[in-house]
Amino acid sequence: MINRRKTRLVKVGGVKVGGGAPVSIQSMTKVETSDVSAVVSQIKRLKNAGCDIIRVAVKTVKDAQAVRVIKRKIDMPIVCDIHFDHRLALKCIESGADKIRLNPGNIRKAGDIGEVVRAAKRAKIPIRIGVNSGSTSEDFVKSAIRYVKIFEELDFRDIIISLKASDVTKTVEAYREISKLCDYPLHLGVTASGPYDLGIVKSSIGIGALLLDGIGDTIRVSLTADPVEEVIGAKRILSSLNLRNFGPEILSCPTCGRCQVDLVKLVNDLERAIRNTQYARRKDPLTIAMMGCEVNGPGEAKEADIGIAFGKGSGILFKKGRVVKKVSIKNAVGELIKNL
Amino acid sequence: MINRRKTRLVKVGGVKVGGGAPVSIQSMTKVETSDVSAVVSQIKRLKNAGCDIIRVAVKTVKDAQAVRVIKRKIDMPIVCDIHFDHRLALKCIESGADKIRLNPGNIRKAGDIGEVVRAAKRAKIPIRIGVNSGSTSEDFVKSAIRYVKIFEELDFRDIIISLKASDVTKTVEAYREISKLCDYPLHLGVTASGPYDLGIVKSSIGIGALLLDGIGDTIRVSLTADPVEEVIGAKRILSSLNLRNFGPEILSCPTCGRCQVDLVKLVNDLERAIRNTQYARRKDPLTIAMMGCEVNGPGEAKEADIGIAFGKGSGILFKKGRVVKKVSIKNAVGELIKNL
Repeated sequence: MINRRKTRLVKVGGVKVGGGAPVSIQSMTKVETSDVSAVVSQIKRLKNAGCDIIRVAVKTVKDAQAVRVIKRKIDMPIVCDIHFDHRLALKCIESGADKIRLNPGNIRKAGDIGEVVRAAKRAKIPIRIGVNSGSTSEDFVKSAIRYVKIFEELDFRDIIISLKASDVTKTVEAYREISKLCDYPLHLGVTASGPYDLGIVKSSIGIGALLLDGIGDTIRVSLTADPVEEVIGAKRILSSLNLRNFGPEILSCPTCGRCQVDLVKLVNDLERAIRNTQYARRKDPLTIAMMGCEVNGPGEAKEADIGIAFGKGSGILFKKGRVVKKVSIKNAVGELIKNL
Repeated sequence: MINRRKTRLVKVGGVKVGGGAPVSIQSMTKVETSDVSAVVSQIKRLKNAGCDIIRVAVKTVKDAQAVRVIKRKIDMPIVCDIHFDHRLALKCIESGADKIRLNPGNIRKAGDIGEVVRAAKRAKIPIRIGVNSGSTSEDFVKSAIRYVKIFEELDFRDIIISLKASDVTKTVEAYREISKLCDYPLHLGVTASGPYDLGIVKSSIGIGALLLDGIGDTIRVSLTADPVEEVIGAKRILSSLNLRNFGPEILSCPTCGRCQVDLVKLVNDLERAIRNTQYARRKDPLTIAMMGCEVNGPGEAKEADIGIAFGKGSGILFKKGRVVKKVSIKNAVGELIKNL
């Protein structure tokens, strides 16, 4: 139902970004990049969780050299995050980085930028122009466009752009504005969005509102938390908007005075049970409803492929809005799994 | 920064909805309504968490009678949720309900609707036309508008409308459509959005995207969880969009290979410390940043009123982008609180 904006196709290693490719998920490692074994083990956990592209912070030459070793041990495109010193970008390109992120707020000299752009061009890798509202004094859309112009003058168009602020409204407005000014793929995110519970709300609103507009080609949920939570959060945003599927989606009502079962427990049981089935990683959409009463029965949950509406002491198992059978509360989850 | 849509003012007890009033927060009790003491104790917890309007399910005459007793014991407008049997709405109005919610999907006869509308008019209370996509076979915007017409023919305009689907895109499209067709205040929500972790993402995207458009006068985050979580989630959505303030907001970076402190722990410590200060419930905006490195220092976090950027072994305390002093990691949270 979402009409995605047409953008230029940019390749990050083997992952396509833009040009109608599925919205990819990014995260960032949270250990020192020179600590190769810690980085590699975190990247493997992130890959397993569903991450498509990984970024590492490069703050020293040692970090830049580690990228070469890390690349050999992982199976995911790696992006090197560069601030202040453009020479680290050059080192990372030598080490085989699949993409460079530059911050226009702290790498400003046209000569330095040009060196990186020419090296990226030779290596055939893209550069993200990653503007954060805090690190530039000018309007941050203008800051990105000024950078884009420098790149284009060097005939370099393997560009991805991000415009992150910690303020959600500001972030959304900036992306909406830049989406009208160029066709480069956009990397969405809300920066410094805070601890998990607040950060997931801010990221969902900001990234979600833009994706609803058809804006956004790759996303990163930033959370002060385990990066695996960022990937899971990103998957939830994308599946909520039917942009990608990552296994069954559970619809469940909030319950109210009508509900006569412990629905929170039953939903938890269902989530746990699904994890152990072939359905856990199935990629075609599958929606399972768990509803607390007859108001929320087969009719209300007709968008679900299968579900149970609970009454007093039992439930009704239904498929595509049609009643299949009566089930006991005790056997409800088991019967549901059996009938998937 | 959000330009809110102009809507008609409707009063729910002492709470103004629409007409430029602050976006109010709703939740629903999750115990049987006839169990007065359980309902009252849940409502008190919700009030304490920040809930403005509470809804109870009324499925029997006993429930409807309980509303009169509950009202005496609480200090919050109470909405009665009616399905199937319009006579329960009449009973609730007798019991002093502050608002009635009718579901066009299961109360369909014009005569029945008319009886409720006339009783609400006499009692001077509003009615929410609460359409859920699942419980109506026709287009659900049309279903709401058909109901509105019946109300208007009876010269009743104390109307609030909701159009909830479990699909986020469908929900957002429906609200955007109806916002162009009338000026009644809108109650936003995504229905059956699932267990906490998925539900908060779906609700944040759906409610958040609409609020960003200036659409929405009152919100309910539906979660298969403790209703207090619904209220806290709603507060996070509203504060993320600067529509309301509920105490200090913490900005914190996701950390990366640059970070040399345990920022997750430091942010948790800060959250805990704030809870015990006068700032916890302060209503004017206060933004506190906790940043993991110099990239994310005073410049990056200049949107914050106060903050700390950590380096190796110490941090820099800053206010409004200007450095105040160096602090040790051990004393960081304490120094920050002291300097608020």
